[in-house]
Amino acid sequence: MNENLWQHILTVRNQSPLVQNITNYVVMNNTANALLAIGASPIMAHAHHEMASMQKICNALVINIGTLDEYWVESMLIAATEANHNNKPWILDPVGAGATPYRDEVLNRLLELKPAAIRGNASEILALAKHNKTQTKGVDSTASSLEAIDAARYLTKEFGCLVVISGETDVIVNEGQEFKLNNGNALMTKITGMGCSATAILAAFIAVITNKTEAAVAATALISIAGELAARNSAGPGSLQMNILDKLYNITETEFLQHIKLSN
Amino acid sequence: MNENLWQHILTVRNQSPLVQNITNYVVMNNTANALLAIGASPIMAHAHHEMASMQKICNALVINIGTLDEYWVESMLIAATEANHNNKPWILDPVGAGATPYRDEVLNRLLELKPAAIRGNASEILALAKHNKTQTKGVDSTASSLEAIDAARYLTKEFGCLVVISGETDVIVNEGQEFKLNNGNALMTKITGMGCSATAILAAFIAVITNKTEAAVAATALISIAGELAARNSAGPGSLQMNILDKLYNITETEFLQHIKLSN
Amino acid sequence: MNENLWQHILTVRNQSPLVQNITNYVVMNNTANALLAIGASPIMAHAHHEMASMQKICNALVINIGTLDEYWVESMLIAATEANHNNKPWILDPVGAGATPYRDEVLNRLLELKPAAIRGNASEILALAKHNKTQTKGVDSTASSLEAIDAARYLTKEFGCLVVISGETDVIVNEGQEFKLNNGNALMTKITGMGCSATAILAAFIAVITNKTEAAVAATALISIAGELAARNSAGPGSLQMNILDKLYNITETEFLQHIKLSN
Repeated sequence: MNENLWQHILTVRNQSPLVQNITNYVVMNNTANALLAIGASPIMAHAHHEMASMQKICNALVINIGTLDEYWVESMLIAATEANHNNKPWILDPVGAGATPYRDEVLNRLLELKPAAIRGNASEILALAKHNKTQTKGVDSTASSLEAIDAARYLTKEFGCLVVISGETDVIVNEGQEFKLNNGNALMTKITGMGCSATAILAAFIAVITNKTEAAVAATALISIAGELAARNSAGPGSLQMNILDKLYNITETEFLQHIKLSN
Repeated sequence: MNENLWQHILTVRNQSPLVQNITNYVVMNNTANALLAIGASPIMAHAHHEMASMQKICNALVINIGTLDEYWVESMLIAATEANHNNKPWILDPVGAGATPYRDEVLNRLLELKPAAIRGNASEILALAKHNKTQTKGVDSTASSLEAIDAARYLTKEFGCLVVISGETDVIVNEGQEFKLNNGNALMTKITGMGCSATAILAAFIAVITNKTEAAVAATALISIAGELAARNSAGPGSLQMNILDKLYNITETEFLQHIKLSN
Repeated sequence: MNENLWQHILTVRNQSPLVQNITNYVVMNNTANALLAIGASPIMAHAHHEMASMQKICNALVINIGTLDEYWVESMLIAATEANHNNKPWILDPVGAGATPYRDEVLNRLLELKPAAIRGNASEILALAKHNKTQTKGVDSTASSLEAIDAARYLTKEFGCLVVISGETDVIVNEGQEFKLNNGNALMTKITGMGCSATAILAAFIAVITNKTEAAVAATALISIAGELAARNSAGPGSLQMNILDKLYNITETEFLQHIKLSN
């Protein structure tokens, strides 16, 4: 499978999917740069008047609720509906799920619009599945990804979507298949928006790879391995943020295949 | 006192306060990263529907008016009111005070809601106290921090809040106590959002340190010394922005105590 | 002319024009930092209540429609109108022109308000002049800048504004004069917001240089040469983004004059 994963990375570079992002203010710059670094093409737009047009020209849509408000929630609902009409996959990043009732109410409405995939940390996936045993602390996870596997299985069955749980071990759950990735570096938790970049990269892969499970494994492996390799030359989170963009851009097949730690 | 200050830095790292930020679009990424680098936990949210819930779970609130508009001003007013109801300290960053009548009107309403602390450059502190002798030029200060000490004393007395004036010399003014810090580097003025990061760090310290004056001195010393040390390896403002995040994360007790230049 | 261009760079550093930006969320941080790096003073503001006041204190205005919505479009229209009343030049960055009907409708309204200059990639300039032969793909250009020269000439004649077309070759078109610059590096297309920074820098130069054509050539040469030199030490787009800010700040007369590739 690992050889397939590398081919998927090349497919994204070659096909350069256009990914439309309705995402939070904090990470927009990094998200756009992460998409560019892997060879995709980002667009950020949220005006109600152009949501329908955008879903016609883009190849996938990211909805990230990080800094949501009433106007942006309406943008998200229009965009997800239009993405569905145009058979474009849309990916949900439930930032801060469980932190406030408003977030949970918005997430419930979004789940009804059938995302192709969801990516979040364990606390968020647990909250989304109403399996929360732990209290969300802001946007950071206080649970391990392994604790959220049942919640991910539930979401997969209930909403027909693939789920990626980010954490020390990343877990990809889809239709009875489960994969675990043990790449990454703890310093990645000290940079804002790593998860948001992972979601955007996931969208780029799902946009152009037919096998959705492999797409998700490739996308998740790419950012985790890039982070792991970038951390080796990083004195702290500032340089890691920069080095990850460089590594997403210049990672080689040898680096990828030598470092991937994938298991069922 | 210097030994106490280092203990406060460790307290923030250990207790990891959750800081809710209503701040400007320009600096959100850096602010979140600065909070993560010192061991705190950032959240950025502004939806009216969740302002009350957020003030229950956060440990402190930052209100920064940099890119204010009507919706965000309402978020600020709700959040400050709710922070007060929940006995959570809130910190005001009066970006561009004096630049337009709208900013000054909003600042007057915010001051009535009793911030625990205010951090700004000299021009902003002078404008806030209606002591402006100088014209604000955008968001940069044209006065020195020493010229704004009387204005800071006035704000402290009138509104019962601690005041930090940022500049070549940083000045902390609180209830008859005054401290001066002579750290930092002129290149820090060539990066956007340094002051905004200083405010967010101040909020993290005030969230968990009982002695508010020491909290403010520790927070201000931390970012100024980090900037001073980071500038030594920086070819310009781009690398300084990165190196400051690294140094906020990896600064040691020895580095901190050897470089701090604190006086009354 | 090259000697004049360097003098213009020094003039911006010495006069430090205040540039007001109504720009997109993705690039605000980089844009502010690019302006600071060249010695200008950035301000970002969009509240309707302060648009008139801001046009009185700023020296130039940037309008960039990247993440437009109804509120921000109204801010843009008020600001451009007020800039005109105050005889302050305003510069248009038509991000994603041609991507959606809403963008094109907004751009038509903005063009009526007579920008002093327009900067975009070839696809955007072609779309703006309704000369589109190519389909815009998100915010990236699929045409070469040379293909858009006729469109730029049309815009110059029709709206009396200078036009800069960014691309592998940058083209400056103004009142019968045309200049071509062959600086830059392909890696610059892998960073978001390079064009937006180029527009903001253009605004800073037009704010203080009487000869608008020379101002535009100097501004465009500055960022292109900075990018070209920065790319030499960059392992990927992350480090290039940082190194460009450093080079905008520390570029010397010798570096500038040795590398500029200007032709008619």
